[in-house]
Amino acid sequence: MGTVVALGGQVGGAKLAEGLYRLRGAKLAVIVNTGDDYDYLGLPISPDVDTMLYALAGIADANKGWEPAGESFACHGMLTRLGGPVEVPLGDRALALHLLRAEALRAERAPTAVTLELAQRLGIEARVLPMCDDPVRTVVHTESGAMSFRDYFIDLKCEPAVLGFQYGGADEARLSDEVLDALHAADLEAVVLCPCNPYHALQPILAVNGMRAALRKRGAPVIAVSPIIGGRALQGSAAKMMQELGREVSARAIAMQYRKLIDGIVIDSADEALAEGIRAGGVEVLAVPTFMRNADDRLKLARAVLDFARDVRMRREVAADA
Amino acid sequence: MGTVVALGGQVGGAKLAEGLYRLRGAKLAVIVNTGDDYDYLGLPISPDVDTMLYALAGIADANKGWEPAGESFACHGMLTRLGGPVEVPLGDRALALHLLRAEALRAERAPTAVTLELAQRLGIEARVLPMCDDPVRTVVHTESGAMSFRDYFIDLKCEPAVLGFQYGGADEARLSDEVLDALHAADLEAVVLCPCNPYHALQPILAVNGMRAALRKRGAPVIAVSPIIGGRALQGSAAKMMQELGREVSARAIAMQYRKLIDGIVIDSADEALAEGIRAGGVEVLAVPTFMRNADDRLKLARAVLDFARDVRMRREVAADA
Repeated sequence: MGTVVALGGQVGGAKLAEGLYRLRGAKLAVIVNTGDDYDYLGLPISPDVDTMLYALAGIADANKGWEPAGESFACHGMLTRLGGPVEVPLGDRALALHLLRAEALRAERAPTAVTLELAQRLGIEARVLPMCDDPVRTVVHTESGAMSFRDYFIDLKCEPAVLGFQYGGADEARLSDEVLDALHAADLEAVVLCPCNPYHALQPILAVNGMRAALRKRGAPVIAVSPIIGGRALQGSAAKMMQELGREVSARAIAMQYRKLIDGIVIDSADEALAEGIRAGGVEVLAVPTFMRNADDRLKLARAVLDFARDVRMRREVAADA
Repeated sequence: MGTVVALGGQVGGAKLAEGLYRLRGAKLAVIVNTGDDYDYLGLPISPDVDTMLYALAGIADANKGWEPAGESFACHGMLTRLGGPVEVPLGDRALALHLLRAEALRAERAPTAVTLELAQRLGIEARVLPMCDDPVRTVVHTESGAMSFRDYFIDLKCEPAVLGFQYGGADEARLSDEVLDALHAADLEAVVLCPCNPYHALQPILAVNGMRAALRKRGAPVIAVSPIIGGRALQGSAAKMMQELGREVSARAIAMQYRKLIDGIVIDSADEALAEGIRAGGVEVLAVPTFMRNADDRLKLARAVLDFARDVRMRREVAADA
């Protein structure tokens, strides 16, 4: 059983990571998007990292995966009474993480060290790693101008059509020692691009200077899992954005987007007809059910992904020997 | 109907202030102790100011006057799960005030302006004024050493015997324009020292450089309300501290403590026997029920205090004419 590195963010990323965690435990490292991080009421909010922490700690709400189960909003209610700000509904339980993170960052500790400590306090054995310790900010270029992802998502409810994305600071960012350690693991078994938004959950990670090269360093198979099923996004606005950017909304477009990086892609059984076209582009394909309704689905998909990675590696080895 | 200025802190101070507020509305100014303020998880906690805000906004818990009604502790529960810190049980609703105060202070706004804005947002017409804008910190000297009031109260549960108090920074503190405006009001009718701990709720206010002189500037009667009834404190550790400091635990000792400042003192009916001795010391006395169980008690006591102040003033005027 080797080291598995998963990349992603959002609820989709957290769900697959949870399945992988049940299979690999401490051998899993998750590199999480921080391009959507923002400050709110003086608190450093890291939505994708927290979603990942809740999922791996087993305390995520079954429906709203981005918050802890049983979350309450008493503080938010009082902020409302006090006249705001209330654009972001800060949950009471979530505040505990925000406060601890704020305190640690004020003490000039690195985001990675802080996240690992939060994970450890939550009893998580896997390594939850922010994509880097430097600030990288996803900028959404839209018909209504350029803005942070937070403003696009919260203030504008993802309404303006997107024209493109930028990852400010990614070129100057340095990979953390912890990310490099995970990707350079001698027993690296697979790198998994989780099913999440390509533009603001995965690309920010891939944009970090040196990340793409590091992903391929050990030669372990790199496998993507499509966030698009039957022309629709699993969750969120990926399909809408693909359309606005003039892309086909399909698992094939996802495969094309990552084709220079990945060896294989896992698509949904519903999209099996696309497999041949994707393979013709040089990317291996596995078609299985990918919609994760519950813990069992998450485990099954994780197992399918790792089995697929093993098959990809074996076929490559056979081809190399031939 | 003139301006009334009340001084104090804690629940006792908030209760009487609430009664005075019902009688004088926007004509009330409350000068609140901030010597117990402290930072916790990066939040500026101002216990007496918040207690006062909850009381005047009519949202204080009927039993635990220091927190809003219906307070919950979901954030605290998550902090506990995360391994702390949890010495201070931060309420979810209270967090809203802490967060807003923190943000405003980071923007370098003065504590008085911030408090007035919080009060306004809570619909309070009275002026709630921190005793000054400079940091003044109550230091408790005890058998176990010197410490902040927070450490004495929270970490040591008020257990070590006290040897004395210091109000660090009080000598260098400046009275705020808002406090001076209130105390210099042309229509100042009465100054009321609320029934609260003399050592860490009232003395810190009185220790602020220039406060005692400002209290007497307009010549309005200064009236104290004893926090001691029948040798016991209304609430908190006042009796314990008086004993440890070698003082008599009585309304008479309270009158003596403030004798250079006050014209009269309101004591409990149960202590009527002490009235003659106090009067012999040159302080006028009113003995009425002072224990405030409910809003009606608070209103009655407030009315008694203001009527007593009016009588004191009239007697002084008659004496001056004679």
